[in-house]
Amino acid sequence: MRIAIGDFLLSRLQDAGITEIIGVPGDFNLNLIEQIDAREGIRFVGTCNELNAAYAADGYARSRGLGALLTTYGVGELSALNGIAGAAAEHVPLVSIAGAPPLYATEARYDLHHSMGDGNFENILSSVGQITAAAVRITPHNAVEEIDRALHTALREKRPVHIQVPSDITHLTIEAPQEPLNTAWPSSDPERLASAVERIAELFAAAKSPVLLVDLDADRHGFAESLQQLAEKTQTPYAQLASGKGILDEQSPLFLGTYNGAGSAPDVRSTVENADLLLTTTPRFIEANSGSFTHNLPADAVVDLGDQHVTIHGEDYIGITVQELLDALLETLPAAQTPVTRFREETVEWEVAPDAALTQQRLWPRMARFVREGDVVITEAGTSNIGLGPQPLPSGVKYINSGIWGSIGFTLPALLGSQLAAPSRRHLLFIGDGSFQLTAQELSTILREDLAPIIVLVNNRGYTIERWILGMRSAYNDIANWDYGKLPEVFHPGTSMVSYSASTEEELEQALAQIDGSSAGAFLELHLEPEDAPAGLKAFGPMTADFDYGPRGPRNP
Amino acid sequence: MRIAIGDFLLSRLQDAGITEIIGVPGDFNLNLIEQIDAREGIRFVGTCNELNAAYAADGYARSRGLGALLTTYGVGELSALNGIAGAAAEHVPLVSIAGAPPLYATEARYDLHHSMGDGNFENILSSVGQITAAAVRITPHNAVEEIDRALHTALREKRPVHIQVPSDITHLTIEAPQEPLNTAWPSSDPERLASAVERIAELFAAAKSPVLLVDLDADRHGFAESLQQLAEKTQTPYAQLASGKGILDEQSPLFLGTYNGAGSAPDVRSTVENADLLLTTTPRFIEANSGSFTHNLPADAVVDLGDQHVTIHGEDYIGITVQELLDALLETLPAAQTPVTRFREETVEWEVAPDAALTQQRLWPRMARFVREGDVVITEAGTSNIGLGPQPLPSGVKYINSGIWGSIGFTLPALLGSQLAAPSRRHLLFIGDGSFQLTAQELSTILREDLAPIIVLVNNRGYTIERWILGMRSAYNDIANWDYGKLPEVFHPGTSMVSYSASTEEELEQALAQIDGSSAGAFLELHLEPEDAPAGLKAFGPMTADFDYGPRGPRNP
Repeated sequence: MRIAIGDFLLSRLQDAGITEIIGVPGDFNLNLIEQIDAREGIRFVGTCNELNAAYAADGYARSRGLGALLTTYGVGELSALNGIAGAAAEHVPLVSIAGAPPLYATEARYDLHHSMGDGNFENILSSVGQITAAAVRITPHNAVEEIDRALHTALREKRPVHIQVPSDITHLTIEAPQEPLNTAWPSSDPERLASAVERIAELFAAAKSPVLLVDLDADRHGFAESLQQLAEKTQTPYAQLASGKGILDEQSPLFLGTYNGAGSAPDVRSTVENADLLLTTTPRFIEANSGSFTHNLPADAVVDLGDQHVTIHGEDYIGITVQELLDALLETLPAAQTPVTRFREETVEWEVAPDAALTQQRLWPRMARFVREGDVVITEAGTSNIGLGPQPLPSGVKYINSGIWGSIGFTLPALLGSQLAAPSRRHLLFIGDGSFQLTAQELSTILREDLAPIIVLVNNRGYTIERWILGMRSAYNDIANWDYGKLPEVFHPGTSMVSYSASTEEELEQALAQIDGSSAGAFLELHLEPEDAPAGLKAFGPMTADFDYGPRGPRNP
Repeated sequence: MRIAIGDFLLSRLQDAGITEIIGVPGDFNLNLIEQIDAREGIRFVGTCNELNAAYAADGYARSRGLGALLTTYGVGELSALNGIAGAAAEHVPLVSIAGAPPLYATEARYDLHHSMGDGNFENILSSVGQITAAAVRITPHNAVEEIDRALHTALREKRPVHIQVPSDITHLTIEAPQEPLNTAWPSSDPERLASAVERIAELFAAAKSPVLLVDLDADRHGFAESLQQLAEKTQTPYAQLASGKGILDEQSPLFLGTYNGAGSAPDVRSTVENADLLLTTTPRFIEANSGSFTHNLPADAVVDLGDQHVTIHGEDYIGITVQELLDALLETLPAAQTPVTRFREETVEWEVAPDAALTQQRLWPRMARFVREGDVVITEAGTSNIGLGPQPLPSGVKYINSGIWGSIGFTLPALLGSQLAAPSRRHLLFIGDGSFQLTAQELSTILREDLAPIIVLVNNRGYTIERWILGMRSAYNDIANWDYGKLPEVFHPGTSMVSYSASTEEELEQALAQIDGSSAGAFLELHLEPEDAPAGLKAFGPMTADFDYGPRGPRNP
């Protein structure tokens, strides 16, 4: 069939589940936005700036399976690049689209605005291409192949891809396939699959102490449900990395806790490190996930489930679609006869100390109790993620953070994106004041889109995570103290979002009671001391300083 | 002498005139910030995010001659990249410094936060390196040579450079030269210089209608004062490109106006295009500077003054430091006997129409009258720059905009940077609401730094420049309507900045009278109609749409 190039791109995105494209208008993409507007079932959501749009598209992808970003050439793409890089680091499938100058002008090397004005139209694409799994400028000659290639790459590799669309080709028609984009996994090589299943089944049969250790790829590749079933059928206890929090049910008796090398609870550490069969999902052992590189997995017991390969005791079985392997294992492996009867502490009653000032130590267990089954919980890097991370959350909670890339400011726009992608789920965001200031304006778009999240702003007057690394009382870690509670009304006069503020446990309880009884959005500002930190940060800070600055660093002058 | 690597870098920046380094703390740069804090005569200014920091460092460079930016690895550098690219496009000397992971960890390819977690530490540097004139990760072995090379490149080529500083080397000492950084221009090849001077003097002697056409390089390389003297001594009339506005005195009888190809005033166009000697400073003929590529310079009359070369009628004289050429020409060329007696219209009295709603047509001539000699005037891309651009401003005004790169949101942080660099000058910013929202939080830093600019927010409910290109009434060009006037008080409770608002000419006059009589900062919100635009934009919009979308675009479906 003949179809306009812009419409072809949009139809492919729709095939992959996209109903919102998030971005910022610019002259090189207005024409594509017109095509979005004219199309059923897909719409453009404008954000205040492009980095925020990228973060939002990342959040959207985490809840929807794919995100789509639209920017304009040069100024827009590069503004978004840190957000695109976050998707690369965090293995998030993201289609970044940029309206580019007209094809004839790039080929004739015109001096144009939004370029260096020197006829060079390769530098921006090369710059973005260092970061993405595919980066291409499409033409009428290659649009069908390149668009499908980029989308397959994003969907299968769970990485960002970048497509520049010259502004003069969107309305030209091309011959394109009638069939929708094939989003199915390719099937495995039958022999390799059968061999891997057989080998793993043998290992399971022989194992006395199997353990499953999950990390974020299990979420990105959609393995969570099968892994949960596998763990339950075989009664295999499981742990998670901090960056894999909440992928498997934290309320199950099978749940061990978080593995973090020497920073783990002793029983979690010994159970994982002494497993005689350790199923992993490509664990990401960066500093914060490994107790500063003190992780020690039993190499001769590890079976790693990748995306298109399985590694068994160091031997690679390639050409395997791991979901097929999981399906086969679920059929093959016998159900365990005795359920694991691991003792889990009963939740103790929470006693409020009404006049007590809020502390990091008591805040996070309290906030964990506020979370409901099925919520989406988003925690910003810093005290929020480090504080809430160790608290087991209810079943069915989706937990979003940026544990690898760690870009502060990510979560407020990510909240926007996730809630656009999953509007029926209650969304809670926990964010510090330092992080909030980077991307604060996106609260405006959240309100404009009529979303009603619960935003908990932990105001400790600056970058407390940095304070615990270096400069505890240095002015550079302090930031301006905004009148945060007024922002919902400033950004959206007449908003239904309600602002609350609490400095004591009683004030917090009153606010939470009101928030819990209302369907309106909430903006809850909590006042905490600048030097107060969760226990995890008090350990992480000095360890990071040692790692970063070494024996001749500023802490040891 | 032996000196810590961080201190050496800072001392070199101080040699080049830096007293403020603008950026955002992160664990890989906290150690360098400690060194800044410990040093006399230089300080760290924290902004809300890294893109804003880059914009601010760019603004600083335009008023100081060099800017310095400090970010952290990956997340920070890439967030700043669009701002760094703006400096590249606009020929602004900017030293971008990023704290990087420890050298031993990058060499051993550790999986780290703020990286892709895959041991690759080349991708970020390569990405930034596509955009900058130099990009390097320093080590104790190369720090002296690479830092000096980067600074010389920035200062001489007027481009951004990027230096990654591993977090574990800042406090190590190295052997470094005692002498300060040599910031002098290298001297010219004497023969080439003499030949060029002689040739140009001959051309001047023969010329009946010499003209000088200035663009932004004249500002960046510091030629403005010499060019002004040259024009006056030889009574050579001069025009400017829009991107070269205000470099030469707009009140002089020698000032012709703005050259913009077919978009020029007829007498400007014919004077420039019929010159028999046309001195240029490497004009940047992008769409907006060339009347959509209708410029037509007399090739056989052009003498182009570059930075280290002069091109005379197509013949390159290389190895010349142009400032030396200008000095020699000022000595050599005879003073004109008859002054140019070009008639300039007397400024007519301005009659206020008290009840009249504000219009773009009347707003900009009025605002031009509000500007004082010696002010710094910053105009955002869109209606502000297009509206104020054609209005001649008082002598000694510095005019800052982003005419080539055109990144919206640039000017609010650029205002911060310029005012830090030139605190004794009154600063005025003209910015639309659409642009303001991209980087709005930096108002907080402006107030925290106790700066008192006059900010004029042109609220026309969205992206009016885009509306005139495409989608005049499309929702994607509308944005949220904030309660802007409350922001100074939200971002800095107790601020001395006063908010004003005006919809009519009378309200505008009252606000301007109050602002003019006060030394406090002002935030003046003007309400204009979404579809109202300066005449220049009404012409530019459809021309841009034709250029961008071509005959099969959305305007001609």
